Formats: sequence, structure tokens, C-alpha cells
Amino acid sequence: MYSLYYSPGAASLVVHWLLIELEAPHELRLVDTKAGQQKSSEYLALNPNGVVPTLVVDGKPLYEAAALVLHVADRHPQAGLAPALDDPQRGAYLQWVLNLANTLQSPLRLWWHPHDIDAERTELVQDGARRRIEATWERLDAHLAANGPYLLGERLSAADFYLTMLLRWTRSMPRSGDSWPHLAALAQRMKARPSFRTLYEREGLTEWA
Amino acid sequence: MYSLYYSPGAASLVVHWLLIELEAPHELRLVDTKAGQQKSSEYLALNPNGVVPTLVVDGKPLYEAAALVLHVADRHPQAGLAPALDDPQRGAYLQWVLNLANTLQSPLRLWWHPHDIDAERTELVQDGARRRIEATWERLDAHLAANGPYLLGERLSAADFYLTMLLRWTRSMPRSGDSWPHLAALAQRMKARPSFRTLYEREGLTEWA
Repeated sequence: MYSLYYSPGAASLVVHWLLIELEAPHELRLVDTKAGQQKSSEYLALNPNGVVPTLVVDGKPLYEAAALVLHVADRHPQAGLAPALDDPQRGAYLQWVLNLANTLQSPLRLWWHPHDIDAERTELVQDGARRRIEATWERLDAHLAANGPYLLGERLSAADFYLTMLLRWTRSMPRSGDSWPHLAALAQRMKARPSFRTLYEREGLTEWA
Repeated sequence: MYSLYYSPGAASLVVHWLLIELEAPHELRLVDTKAGQQKSSEYLALNPNGVVPTLVVDGKPLYEAAALVLHVADRHPQAGLAPALDDPQRGAYLQWVLNLANTLQSPLRLWWHPHDIDAERTELVQDGARRRIEATWERLDAHLAANGPYLLGERLSAADFYLTMLLRWTRSMPRSGDSWPHLAALAQRMKARPSFRTLYEREGLTEWA
């Protein structure tokens, strides 16, 4: 049994989605991020970074969304969402998960919180973040064009769930990730999964359905 | 046999160090980053991000330093630098590697390349990055004080090699990572490993010895 501390649409989304996809028994704990509950002393004792998600696994709280993607997928090998350690695609799988964390999730943090860097010129910080994000979409779209339809080719993996969450996050940017054609095709495939509909129902989401 | 594309002291350092520590046969390919060789068409064909490291594993080029840390450690289980998939510490191990990537390597990129965000107010971008980095050192030092001496307690893991590289990278910042006492103690332990001396010899490094 897993316990997931989440907020609708936040970085917890990919972990929640994988738990549904994997049919892994779990309970949800809503964190009211608008009220700042993620900075409460109780929550900080679970996750000193003060962000969602936190996933309690065998009684121990773990954080970092991309680490949870890797860990949850490895714990349910029968679903095949993570290549096994001796699988020739294991290295590429790890590469993509880390590459998404570095080249998308990290500049997206700047896009949302430009004040952390420069409170006066937030539009410049956002513009720098936007350029990095769009360069990544360009590179990923070219990768999918040559090697798709998924990040690992014909093989669906947990990395695609993570990528789909990041695509969703850019839906209101000047140029959304799914305006690139091969990324759009991947998003459509992923959104067609029954687990995506269940996820949307449970988190009460409507945008980008 | 691995082939590592590297530049002395760059993010390739942790991969090189692990290959030495693991006694894994490898060859080194120097990338002249000052001459911009990482942006050459030959190199971009291996690694479209145009950065080091790239590690060729079984003939396939892989990138993202933190992914290579995970992958190389998993491929040499006899050394025990990565908890096995069914080890109770596996989740915490993944969490720390991803947390270092997100909360240190990512803002360090801003510290070094503030022009990417705001070419005029680089000092403000650097200041924002510095605050995030120092907050991370504070949090990691508290973790090591309570649960050290390594990130996983008594158990050395590949995450500690990665952390040591990041500590090294902040050696010239206003406040270096190893000015926090428990981080300093971890750095001393890691620098005392024979593999660290071999690494320094092979990369021709002298600073922070």
C-alpha cells in the first residue's frame, strides 16, 4: 500500500497516474498548496523540500517526482513500464527520465517562479526559461520523428508518462509542447489510455483533457 | 568496455571516478570544450545536448550525468554502490540522486551561465542561484548530521560520488559546500579514496585535492 501526498495537476500527477496504470493499491492525501500546507512543519518532516509529491513506500516517505517514477515502475516489473537492469534499453530509459528532469522540469520551475531569480525582471527570466523549454521540445520532437512513437521507440515506458505530464504543464505557454507534431501524437496516445481518464476524475481535472 | 567523452573537472568527472572505483575497463575521449568541440556536428550526433559526458555502453551513446551514475552503478552490482531493486534503501538512493540533480546541478548551471537567463543582470541571476544552492547545502548538512556520514547512513553509494563532484564545483563560490561541517566530513572521506587520486592524475586536476 502506497500513500501519495498530492495536489491536483502538480508534479504528483505522474506518480498518481502510474499508480493507477499499475493497479497498485494506494491512498491519496490531498495537500492544500494554495493554503501553503506543503510548508507546514508536519509536511516538512516528511519532505524537507516542501513540495509535492511525497510517496510513502513501506512506511518511509520518499520525494522527487522523477525518482518516484523510476522507483514505482521498477517495483512493478510485470507491467513492463521500466526496462529491466539487464535490458539493452535500460540506459536510454534512465537517460530520458533524467533528461526530462533537467531540460524541462527544471526550466519550468523558472517559468513559474521567476521571482526566485529576479523579482523585478520576471519577464526576462521567463523568456530565458521559455527558450530552453522550446529548444528541448524541438530536440524531443526530432527524436520522436526519427525513433518514436514513444521515447524508447515502439516500447511504452514510464518516461512517456512523465513526458506527458510535462507536455500538459506547458499548455498555456506561448508555444505549448503539443504544438510540435510528434509530441502531439505522443500526447494523444497517452491521453487515450483509460488510466488517464481515471486520473482526471480522481484529481478533478478538466483542462487539456 | 566503456568509452567516456569527457572534459577535466566537468560533469563527466563523476562517471570517470565511478569507472575507476568499479575497476571497469574504459577508454577516455577528451572533448576540447574551450574550443567548442562539444558543439561539433560529430559530437552532437552522439549527444544532441552538446555537453559532456557521453558514455558509450555496448556501442550506444548515452548522456545525462546523473543517469550515467545510476546506470553504471547498477551494471556493477558486486561493488555495492547501488542498493538492489528489492533493497529497502533503493527508493532513498534514487531520491538522493534526483534531488542532487534538481537542487544542485540545475541551479549551478544558472550560476555558471547567467547570461542564458538575463545577459544584463547576471549578478542577480547568480544571486538567485546561490541562494538555492546554499539552502540545499543547509538541508543536506542537517540530513548528514542526523543520518550520516553518507547520504544513505553507514552505507556508501554512488550518490556520494555525485555529491562530492557537486561539492567540488562550489569550491570558488562565496560559500563553498564544504564549509558546512558534515558536508566537509563527507568530502574528506571521499577524497581519501585511492580512486580519487587516480582520477585527479588522469584528468590532470590539482584544485580541491
